[in-house]
Amino acid sequence: MWEKNVETFLECESTYEDAKIVLFGAPFDSTTSYRPGARFGSSAIRHESYGLETYSPMLDRDLSDIKVFDGGDLELPFGSTEGALSAIEKTAGGIFADGKLPVLLGGEHLVTLGAVRATAWHHPDLHIIHFDAHADLRDEYLGVQLSHASVIRRCHDLLGDGRIFQFGIRSGDRAEFRWAAEGHTKLQKFDFEGLPGIVSDLAKRKVPVYLTIDLDVLDPSVFPGTGTPEAGGVSFQALHDAMRTVFEGDEKKKGGCNVVGCDLVELAPPLDPTGASTAAACKMVRELLLMAAQ
Amino acid sequence: MWEKNVETFLECESTYEDAKIVLFGAPFDSTTSYRPGARFGSSAIRHESYGLETYSPMLDRDLSDIKVFDGGDLELPFGSTEGALSAIEKTAGGIFADGKLPVLLGGEHLVTLGAVRATAWHHPDLHIIHFDAHADLRDEYLGVQLSHASVIRRCHDLLGDGRIFQFGIRSGDRAEFRWAAEGHTKLQKFDFEGLPGIVSDLAKRKVPVYLTIDLDVLDPSVFPGTGTPEAGGVSFQALHDAMRTVFEGDEKKKGGCNVVGCDLVELAPPLDPTGASTAAACKMVRELLLMAAQ
Amino acid sequence: MWEKNVETFLECESTYEDAKIVLFGAPFDSTTSYRPGARFGSSAIRHESYGLETYSPMLDRDLSDIKVFDGGDLELPFGSTEGALSAIEKTAGGIFADGKLPVLLGGEHLVTLGAVRATAWHHPDLHIIHFDAHADLRDEYLGVQLSHASVIRRCHDLLGDGRIFQFGIRSGDRAEFRWAAEGHTKLQKFDFEGLPGIVSDLAKRKVPVYLTIDLDVLDPSVFPGTGTPEAGGVSFQALHDAMRTVFEGDEKKKGGCNVVGCDLVELAPPLDPTGASTAAACKMVRELLLMAAQ
Amino acid sequence: MWEKNVETFLECESTYEDAKIVLFGAPFDSTTSYRPGARFGSSAIRHESYGLETYSPMLDRDLSDIKVFDGGDLELPFGSTEGALSAIEKTAGGIFADGKLPVLLGGEHLVTLGAVRATAWHHPDLHIIHFDAHADLRDEYLGVQLSHASVIRRCHDLLGDGRIFQFGIRSGDRAEFRWAAEGHTKLQKFDFEGLPGIVSDLAKRKVPVYLTIDLDVLDPSVFPGTGTPEAGGVSFQALHDAMRTVFEGDEKKKGGCNVVGCDLVELAPPLDPTGASTAAACKMVRELLLMAAQ
Amino acid sequence: MWEKNVETFLECESTYEDAKIVLFGAPFDSTTSYRPGARFGSSAIRHESYGLETYSPMLDRDLSDIKVFDGGDLELPFGSTEGALSAIEKTAGGIFADGKLPVLLGGEHLVTLGAVRATAWHHPDLHIIHFDAHADLRDEYLGVQLSHASVIRRCHDLLGDGRIFQFGIRSGDRAEFRWAAEGHTKLQKFDFEGLPGIVSDLAKRKVPVYLTIDLDVLDPSVFPGTGTPEAGGVSFQALHDAMRTVFEGDEKKKGGCNVVGCDLVELAPPLDPTGASTAAACKMVRELLLMAAQ
Amino acid sequence: MWEKNVETFLECESTYEDAKIVLFGAPFDSTTSYRPGARFGSSAIRHESYGLETYSPMLDRDLSDIKVFDGGDLELPFGSTEGALSAIEKTAGGIFADGKLPVLLGGEHLVTLGAVRATAWHHPDLHIIHFDAHADLRDEYLGVQLSHASVIRRCHDLLGDGRIFQFGIRSGDRAEFRWAAEGHTKLQKFDFEGLPGIVSDLAKRKVPVYLTIDLDVLDPSVFPGTGTPEAGGVSFQALHDAMRTVFEGDEKKKGGCNVVGCDLVELAPPLDPTGASTAAACKMVRELLLMAAQ
Repeated sequence: MWEKNVETFLECESTYEDAKIVLFGAPFDSTTSYRPGARFGSSAIRHESYGLETYSPMLDRDLSDIKVFDGGDLELPFGSTEGALSAIEKTAGGIFADGKLPVLLGGEHLVTLGAVRATAWHHPDLHIIHFDAHADLRDEYLGVQLSHASVIRRCHDLLGDGRIFQFGIRSGDRAEFRWAAEGHTKLQKFDFEGLPGIVSDLAKRKVPVYLTIDLDVLDPSVFPGTGTPEAGGVSFQALHDAMRTVFEGDEKKKGGCNVVGCDLVELAPPLDPTGASTAAACKMVRELLLMAAQ
Repeated sequence: MWEKNVETFLECESTYEDAKIVLFGAPFDSTTSYRPGARFGSSAIRHESYGLETYSPMLDRDLSDIKVFDGGDLELPFGSTEGALSAIEKTAGGIFADGKLPVLLGGEHLVTLGAVRATAWHHPDLHIIHFDAHADLRDEYLGVQLSHASVIRRCHDLLGDGRIFQFGIRSGDRAEFRWAAEGHTKLQKFDFEGLPGIVSDLAKRKVPVYLTIDLDVLDPSVFPGTGTPEAGGVSFQALHDAMRTVFEGDEKKKGGCNVVGCDLVELAPPLDPTGASTAAACKMVRELLLMAAQ
Repeated sequence: MWEKNVETFLECESTYEDAKIVLFGAPFDSTTSYRPGARFGSSAIRHESYGLETYSPMLDRDLSDIKVFDGGDLELPFGSTEGALSAIEKTAGGIFADGKLPVLLGGEHLVTLGAVRATAWHHPDLHIIHFDAHADLRDEYLGVQLSHASVIRRCHDLLGDGRIFQFGIRSGDRAEFRWAAEGHTKLQKFDFEGLPGIVSDLAKRKVPVYLTIDLDVLDPSVFPGTGTPEAGGVSFQALHDAMRTVFEGDEKKKGGCNVVGCDLVELAPPLDPTGASTAAACKMVRELLLMAAQ
Repeated sequence: MWEKNVETFLECESTYEDAKIVLFGAPFDSTTSYRPGARFGSSAIRHESYGLETYSPMLDRDLSDIKVFDGGDLELPFGSTEGALSAIEKTAGGIFADGKLPVLLGGEHLVTLGAVRATAWHHPDLHIIHFDAHADLRDEYLGVQLSHASVIRRCHDLLGDGRIFQFGIRSGDRAEFRWAAEGHTKLQKFDFEGLPGIVSDLAKRKVPVYLTIDLDVLDPSVFPGTGTPEAGGVSFQALHDAMRTVFEGDEKKKGGCNVVGCDLVELAPPLDPTGASTAAACKMVRELLLMAAQ
Repeated sequence: MWEKNVETFLECESTYEDAKIVLFGAPFDSTTSYRPGARFGSSAIRHESYGLETYSPMLDRDLSDIKVFDGGDLELPFGSTEGALSAIEKTAGGIFADGKLPVLLGGEHLVTLGAVRATAWHHPDLHIIHFDAHADLRDEYLGVQLSHASVIRRCHDLLGDGRIFQFGIRSGDRAEFRWAAEGHTKLQKFDFEGLPGIVSDLAKRKVPVYLTIDLDVLDPSVFPGTGTPEAGGVSFQALHDAMRTVFEGDEKKKGGCNVVGCDLVELAPPLDPTGASTAAACKMVRELLLMAAQ
Repeated sequence: MWEKNVETFLECESTYEDAKIVLFGAPFDSTTSYRPGARFGSSAIRHESYGLETYSPMLDRDLSDIKVFDGGDLELPFGSTEGALSAIEKTAGGIFADGKLPVLLGGEHLVTLGAVRATAWHHPDLHIIHFDAHADLRDEYLGVQLSHASVIRRCHDLLGDGRIFQFGIRSGDRAEFRWAAEGHTKLQKFDFEGLPGIVSDLAKRKVPVYLTIDLDVLDPSVFPGTGTPEAGGVSFQALHDAMRTVFEGDEKKKGGCNVVGCDLVELAPPLDPTGASTAAACKMVRELLLMAAQ
């Protein structure tokens, strides 16, 4: 029998029931203050993934060996930030209720807040590992508290001091860096220095970890297709190594974090005329799924 | 003495005090549901206007003969629709208070609502002439009432039946066309047929008129650079004629409407790779200012 | 329960069983000699259709009232022309066997040959109505007989003289025009003159008709996003009128052709940076479905 | 034997000796004040012409029947306006000396001045027919007299009053229109009205005519790929008709002008992302050559 | 006398007779399964080379000192893979017969097979050094054996085990990597480790070597303009070093391979909106010619 | 009171009187021989700077702490090289006369000559530090002496041997490299090796230094948006380090040069479709201002 046209990320063709990992998209960018377009990120990753292999030579693993369900994009109301966040939270909450791991694809970075709300409800001692070019620690932006520039600050509202670990940060206003330096978050400028130690510590403590990856942590040469490209970023390999550290621990691979949820955000396909950024995002999603499935 | 860099539309270099017409931009597109980018419209019109002459061969008038002040773009909060509308309303209200004519450049079409609120407050018997490809009459869109797809419906909430005249409409859901046909608005599909008669009537009654021009009423061949291009639109010349009819009346030029405010919206520069749409918008702004100054 | 992500043209969400019309894509452009990209046409039409309404103000009909199944794109082997044509032929043949109407989305124009082969097998007295900028009547192109520039000639191989009616043709080599003028096909240069009479005749004779629409029959101002844009084409409205004539007859709507299959081909999304061509193609597919469903 | 790679416009493969028409390019745009790129025009026309047929269905003639030599692009010094003009003048002069017809491809419109200088030297009673969106009648532009905005004024310096006929003009400053209205040139705004009468008169008087076509006379919907697109232009068909009138006379084809030189200028390929403007320019060059060869 | 317009790579203006190196292009991409466009690669390299100097500061050599003939692009039939390969093979065979070195510019990677067939016929003990992001070792792709994804496998059909050395490979399906690991080819993942030793060995054995460079071995930051960009590639300098190792041997420059033929493939200009990929390809061709001429 | 729209680089909102640093743009690219567009560089840097923070995490300084005046772009005559250079020279001279530091934004590299003329007049013992991919040492280019390819040679005409220090050079003709090697300039190929020693020496001698930065010294992966991208360039971090060395001295920060003027040139926004090059240029301007203000 001929089925209606199905489109999933690569061969993520598990049913929801069978899957351990649930991929879904949040096509939202209403609070983006500079250049919009991240709303098309999750859809483009799914659509362009057919140019990618299921096999990872870096990990020597294959997507065809794991069970991932791709539920597509949520239908989110542009212009209603709270409405969008609630829908994301509810979806992520359902995934947790079913004992599965949510992998959220943005959209702008604010969508992370919806997922983190659900995660924190299910895992009260939640910690966050945050890879980004931007600190995202503003208390408000033009009078608005629910903004892409405030998303980690809002997560801090939920979790409090000492729970958030930021890496790769190379942009923000002076107040954000000072606020972090007061001890509210642990912020590493420019690179991933110190990550193995933190992972080791979190792993020992067995605390639940949410990993949020703003792809603009990558250098714009590797990933120009994003709203606010910031020169001076990390290489593809460096980000891959850092992700692997989170999941597998330090070089000796002695135990990684207990990752209970994760996301990749801020691919903006309209700003990616060569398609190279979308291709890089697709590959990073494949690697993330393969890491998360271990 | 050397002044800080000033950038205005063409030679709109009047002071606010001297001006009869006040141009300002509303860089907002948070509720755009399909392709964003209209937020950059007003800025691009200002920035690219230097490629245009101040003289109009169509009207045989010159911008250098009239007094227009260009106040630049408002700073609007993305992600807060009501915040943005309030700021627009307040600005337009100030212009009315000073006895000047506001000309608003979008941004998405929802920005019109802010200006219409102010206009209706100063001119309770306000009527609206609306040129657009889309009916914009939905009561809500994905649960949101303040949406680009609902802007004329929201204006109707303020003004009631019989006050709104729509032209060029070639897209909408079936319910919108039916709702208009019930008598809530006068809706002319595809073109401007009937406009001279309506203008003549409104002119005789001397009622105040707000003219809102969604540039996507133009055919996409003329104006592709907009969020939702709709094949089958009107020509540049047809729109120019229609605008002139509003301001000057029918072919005999026997009296046009009492236009108290107007706008042009929905240029989306990121969707205009050739620059031809932006150039067309610039020209239409020049023509609009020259017509409004008569 | 949460289903895998489904992507169909607009709301073509009928099952195959229930549907009267079956939409499918043939993502193939290996024989394109100038600028490739039509392989992405069907996928883009499906993907971008969500920016379109289901309701047609031109026809006053709504897609939600008819039953269309969208089977997605075939998986075709690039570099194997005969392999691709066979797959298309087999698919179309299955649709005929099930008593449904196939609507094929290209891909380059050669894909039509696969569908016409199946159609001619089921309807031996098949006639073809062909809208195109190009005659497509070469006997070969660089020694290759299965070429986009030869597709109508290959159809003629199947059907013989007097069965093919070409409209809008404005490009070809001198030999093609001469060959047509020898009586092999009826070729109308530049426009649709004579179409109502032919439709009337075919309708009276009740012969089966395949309608093939190469979207480059449209003027490049309306539809630049195609491999070989040819200045001097028809307007969107003219093409719509012509399609309607085929399905409904002349102005008095006294009976149109017995259309047993149809296609739209040659949208090349990589050549459509504004998206306006894709949007026009989406709208034409909607209109074609609504016409075919009558 | 294998020859070095030759690239000519279509099949313009005549030797210089055999040719009656000589095509050459002037890749210069140093005085363009708004958006440069016309320097690539002639090269793109040559490069992309392989997508075009040699046969014209509009004229029922074929390039393979006429003898055209394509000498390629001159090597012109950017930043030295007078140097570039001298090189063009010298080349055109050589072509006249050899009794052939020069067809110049721009480049910006100022290149016309080089060719007109040579033409006026060989044909002292030269007249000019000028199709353009812009009047190009400024006496200077930012203090510079050799500017694209002054090219027709400079031609007037050479020829004097009553020799220049301008059509399609829809942009310029007020002074330019007034200067023309004083009788220095005959200027027709917006369209080609009056052209047949003028052609008839020039034909009777058998005066030599230089035809200069700034392709921005076309509507930007047809030809967006130019430095200064001006909404409200003529259609491809209208320009074709006007060109044909110049060469063949009025509708009865009773004698056209004695065209001794001609040019097409202002295609700017970097502003033509779809390639449709370049394709239109290629087609117009083919038509011009076929008309000129009669 | 004025010659027809000649266009060659930079100043490769030798006659065929005088040249030691023969450059030619194979504009073919019919089997490309993801994003086409490589057909325009060789033409763009030739066309854009005028932006490059003839002198290499890296090598301190100048193209004006060596004799290279540029024969332009072959005319290949799209849609006929075997026809295209035969034409390439015949051309390369003629160059070998004349005792010259062929340098082939793609086109997609499958064009290499045509050249390798000719090379293997003239040099039965041929070895291949292969730089690429992709293994290209599939036995078939969607049932097709002549595919860009199978080109090295087809070369292996000709040469057998132990003759092919692959570097930089970072994409493929699991079966390809396993097949290589079984000893059919020597495959180095990600980089050029081990190349000097292999070159040294091949140099000692004086076997003929064909060097095939798929430019997508470069990181997409350096070279986004290709059909299937793969994050995690090598730098421009690393590729340059590797090429130099092949021609000149290890760091001590003690003897490189006996390179009898070479190619650069997979530049796709339509995917290179900035032109930086094309510029990089041009530079690599210059360097390759300078290395090959030693 | 409402002021006319002001647009400055970030928050460079000092008055001219209060400022120590004066930023101005020279929108000129008439001598660019390959791909124009640098004329839009300064305007784009100003326009897009609002996407940037005022705070530099690299320097831990903030633009809001320093006083910079942005005078906007000069109005320069395209097609008149000497006219443009004179205007730049006059403006820079005025800034020197007022005791302020000029920071010039290009425009093509030739604009540097205007500023250097003024600087050399005020500081006869001027030295130049030059970062660039290109040597720019030609004595003429196509017979023109005032060319982007000759700008450093023209500076040498003013300053003589031993005053100019070039870094990062990786393109030029053989004669340029030889001329430099004869001792006319100190030219470091590819990178910044030797810079600290030279800075140390210049600092000790307290000579005035003009720093000219052609942004194409950056690798095209980081900065593709320029007329002539040259593979093999330096990283963003390396350029930042080099700039810091000039202003602050070697690693021990023991005294940098006495920089009396500086510029950044050759951003070409039309060649920057992702905006990443413009964003990088904006960030470099911020860093340059923060360094210069120390």
